[in-house]
Amino acid sequence: MPTYAAPLRDMKFLLNEVIDLQKYSDLAGYAEATPDVIEAVLEEAAKFTGEVLAPLNLPGDAEGCHWDNGVVRTPKGFKAAYDTYLQGGWQGLTASAEWGGQELPQVLGLAVSEMMIAANWGFAMYPGLTKGATEAIEAHASHDLKKLYLPKMISGQWSGTMNLTEPHCGTDLGLLRTKAEPQADGSYKITGTKIFISAGEHDLTENIIHLVLARIPGGPEGIKGISLFIVPKLLPNADGSVGARNGVSCARIEEKMGIHSNATCVLNYENATGWLVGEQHKGMRAMFTMMNEARLAVGLQGLGIAQVAYENAVAYAKERRQGRALKGPAEPDQPADSILVHPDVRRMLMTVRAFIEGARALAFWTGLQVDLARRSGDDKTRERAGDLLAILTPVIKAYLTDKGFESTVLAQQCYGGHGYIREWGAEQFVRDARIAQIYEGTNGVQAMDLVGRKLPADSGRAVRRFFGAINGFCEENKDDKNIAEFIAPLAATAAQLQDATLWLVQNGMSNPENAGAAAHDYLNLMALTALAYVWAMMAKTAHEKLAGNGDDKAFYETKLATGRFFLNRILPDAATHLAKLKSGAAPVMALAADAF
Amino acid sequence: MPTYAAPLRDMKFLLNEVIDLQKYSDLAGYAEATPDVIEAVLEEAAKFTGEVLAPLNLPGDAEGCHWDNGVVRTPKGFKAAYDTYLQGGWQGLTASAEWGGQELPQVLGLAVSEMMIAANWGFAMYPGLTKGATEAIEAHASHDLKKLYLPKMISGQWSGTMNLTEPHCGTDLGLLRTKAEPQADGSYKITGTKIFISAGEHDLTENIIHLVLARIPGGPEGIKGISLFIVPKLLPNADGSVGARNGVSCARIEEKMGIHSNATCVLNYENATGWLVGEQHKGMRAMFTMMNEARLAVGLQGLGIAQVAYENAVAYAKERRQGRALKGPAEPDQPADSILVHPDVRRMLMTVRAFIEGARALAFWTGLQVDLARRSGDDKTRERAGDLLAILTPVIKAYLTDKGFESTVLAQQCYGGHGYIREWGAEQFVRDARIAQIYEGTNGVQAMDLVGRKLPADSGRAVRRFFGAINGFCEENKDDKNIAEFIAPLAATAAQLQDATLWLVQNGMSNPENAGAAAHDYLNLMALTALAYVWAMMAKTAHEKLAGNGDDKAFYETKLATGRFFLNRILPDAATHLAKLKSGAAPVMALAADAF
Repeated sequence: MPTYAAPLRDMKFLLNEVIDLQKYSDLAGYAEATPDVIEAVLEEAAKFTGEVLAPLNLPGDAEGCHWDNGVVRTPKGFKAAYDTYLQGGWQGLTASAEWGGQELPQVLGLAVSEMMIAANWGFAMYPGLTKGATEAIEAHASHDLKKLYLPKMISGQWSGTMNLTEPHCGTDLGLLRTKAEPQADGSYKITGTKIFISAGEHDLTENIIHLVLARIPGGPEGIKGISLFIVPKLLPNADGSVGARNGVSCARIEEKMGIHSNATCVLNYENATGWLVGEQHKGMRAMFTMMNEARLAVGLQGLGIAQVAYENAVAYAKERRQGRALKGPAEPDQPADSILVHPDVRRMLMTVRAFIEGARALAFWTGLQVDLARRSGDDKTRERAGDLLAILTPVIKAYLTDKGFESTVLAQQCYGGHGYIREWGAEQFVRDARIAQIYEGTNGVQAMDLVGRKLPADSGRAVRRFFGAINGFCEENKDDKNIAEFIAPLAATAAQLQDATLWLVQNGMSNPENAGAAAHDYLNLMALTALAYVWAMMAKTAHEKLAGNGDDKAFYETKLATGRFFLNRILPDAATHLAKLKSGAAPVMALAADAF
Repeated sequence: MPTYAAPLRDMKFLLNEVIDLQKYSDLAGYAEATPDVIEAVLEEAAKFTGEVLAPLNLPGDAEGCHWDNGVVRTPKGFKAAYDTYLQGGWQGLTASAEWGGQELPQVLGLAVSEMMIAANWGFAMYPGLTKGATEAIEAHASHDLKKLYLPKMISGQWSGTMNLTEPHCGTDLGLLRTKAEPQADGSYKITGTKIFISAGEHDLTENIIHLVLARIPGGPEGIKGISLFIVPKLLPNADGSVGARNGVSCARIEEKMGIHSNATCVLNYENATGWLVGEQHKGMRAMFTMMNEARLAVGLQGLGIAQVAYENAVAYAKERRQGRALKGPAEPDQPADSILVHPDVRRMLMTVRAFIEGARALAFWTGLQVDLARRSGDDKTRERAGDLLAILTPVIKAYLTDKGFESTVLAQQCYGGHGYIREWGAEQFVRDARIAQIYEGTNGVQAMDLVGRKLPADSGRAVRRFFGAINGFCEENKDDKNIAEFIAPLAATAAQLQDATLWLVQNGMSNPENAGAAAHDYLNLMALTALAYVWAMMAKTAHEKLAGNGDDKAFYETKLATGRFFLNRILPDAATHLAKLKSGAAPVMALAADAF
């Protein structure tokens, strides 16, 4: 059975050495996040995820969730694990102190989220969805609603969900039909059917708080007539205790490819009582708060699953003996060498490793932007961080989940035939990882969000900020011979991205299909540029540490070697993405619909 | 539920127009393969696979196989479908007339195999393994063994398996331990455990003929002491009727990621009676006959699954309405346009389509080489075809299964959330496709077979033949302006492959790890070159047909448009593969084993 040991050394390298949270002690919660506190939080999280969650992962997949007449039971052990999670106070780690949270840095929360996903994806989604719902309520709901719901959600006593999709609409929410009829007391009666509701019904929490998109009759058509509502499963009393059952029921749970331990529900709303969050018809804006949070978290899922898949593939590769090293037997006394001697096994493992380390650095650095955008006292800093966050969110969601999935496939490949057998667990990682490319907006939707919304917004201010950060770094470090091997390819890749951006500006306006056909490759090119950037940052820190008197030199040398693998074996894809996108829409759109 | 309609038009284009089987009427079986016969065979196969096999695919996956005390039952409907298959005489389609086969071209057999896999992979493996076993017996067994086994196997009354893997060894068969003790009557007593035996036990046929690798005590150690044996489940009487149960039993079937309707068995051999096939200690050579056949067939699996995944994704994309075309509403009367208007959906579908059409052309052209290598009366022709077959077999096995898998993932992505739900079937294609990258030698093993064995054999004769074919084609067509757009990229890619080959010669000798670390990218570069070659062939035929008076112009124009997508959106990967492989082994092998 697979195991999980959180990559603590790498996380501390990023938080304490590369990003160095102490430099941001003017941000709320950062002064408290000393290296000691970071270490304590990470180690407790590693213990909980490795010892409590990971052992439930394979059995949870095999057992799945049980639906019986609207009641959903999670797999054996999940409720006890959730109680342990509650007692640990994990749900409020980064939440506002005002509502009972610990308000530690979001970037530390990302590290904990990565661990939870890696250990047990199906489990991690229950509290993960609560976190997204919490943030939407905090950002958009009235004080009374906050007071009633947030403390219970931040403690983890109540959980949350997001209800967007309906049978006939997912990406195109303008088509949605769920109705919200205003009532005399200011509440609404919600009626409609929502599908694909993750954690929509389960037995882990006392109450489930659904955030539901619905249409108030008489409002504008399409996307402009959608409002957001809180619809609790059980109606809370004024004192916060739970009261009568609301008009929402779970009609079915889906049979899926993976994440079997998380209930994906069809929810029927029949005159369910709901309360408006934010303004009428402005529901999409409120929902985007939740979705942006969710999209970063989903990117992290790609990273987390790659990590656990990598760890277990390495363990297998070290133990499995087949064949001999090409240079001659590595362990002549054994009947065969470990398969880690074979260059193609190395190629696969290094591809995953270089992805993981770059992706983690990028995700954490972007997590820092979340905190800067929300917690900084300086307008300019908040704006800059918000821009970087806006442009990197779709990149992280799509690239980290695409490559996270590919990483699980490569890890599985290292097992040979055993990788296809359930008991080894490698195939579960592949099945679980697959959903992240699809939900919270498919990766194609992310690419269009980047190219169609984020790039042109504010006359391209965000992408200029992104180039500004990279050019600034290259300029600052142009005389550092140690990292010249990282700076040159970073500058070259950024130039390719600039070329692509210019091409988009010139060709996307005249024919928007050029932008649409370029979106996927553009997003990948931007991701590679961002990764080259964080690799250069990491190389800089590694060299500084190697020049110092500290120990752990092997860690920094390994970091540099992994970075070189990225430069030589992954980054060359940038040129291909540029070539493909510049071929334009014509080859993509040439066929008549009936020729398919 | 997914459906399957065999791509008859494309198959006929390849068999009758591009390859034009009538040109090879001197080969046994080809004169009989007139366009009428080809049409009749393909249409019957399309009917059988579309109407009988495809409807059993999703339920067969859900039900899986049942093991009870050594007895294995296939899913509901499989036995009846197998009886229909037998009555159709499909098993003997390309087999020797001498033993009851129809001896039609292998290349026609490939088309039928593609259909069977596409319609129902789990089912298709049962007769598929029989075919491989049949060919090994025909090539290596004594006349008496052939006489006893071949007629029953070619009729499909008995099935076959291949038994290589043991718990501690798969790729490295030199480690295998199964013993074969010689008996006074010339037979052997086989004892050992074999795992991952596809179709190792089932209820479809009267008898199962296991081909088993085992070690005769006292022989050489390692791979040079392995022999091949026929070990029937039921011992045949001299008259061909089945007699007593042999000492082989199914201890378990595996729980797997996919191909649930095919039983993957652990087989225990306890003093089972077996008969030697070929010479003592020369079992690997005999097994390779079977494996080469199997490797081409596995490549075809990647193609077949991509085809069925594509068809169903297209059907979904045409029906699902979300959003509007970027150029403005395509169907303003509808609430939204079909998602086929979106460039990123097109990108995904065109990627799959261009893969399928190129892969089919390459597989069929290679199938022609199988027939030329076996059936030609001319030594030179046989040698040339054998060389091309040798070098293209690992390319087809690895590239077609890697891209076949990726194609199922892209097809699944077109469904959005519905792609993750079992009832749509898209996720089953992904789970089933995954095995093909692993079995019959992982794709890493294929790459090493290409670079380590096939390239250097006979001083590089095979790769020189491959370049010879391409250069000859480019030269012949250098003045054909119609296909200049295909010839120039073909020549450029072939030049990149020559560059890579030279790099391997120069760097692989001094350090074999350079070859090992390059193998994956080299194989992909060769695949792209081969695809550029068959696309140029197809473009030539398409232009000839367009210039003629025939109808069906839309088909040929679509073919050219799809070829242009290949040139612009897939072929640019060639340069990346070259860059990566030339970075050598150092970045791949840099880490100490304990740094992983």
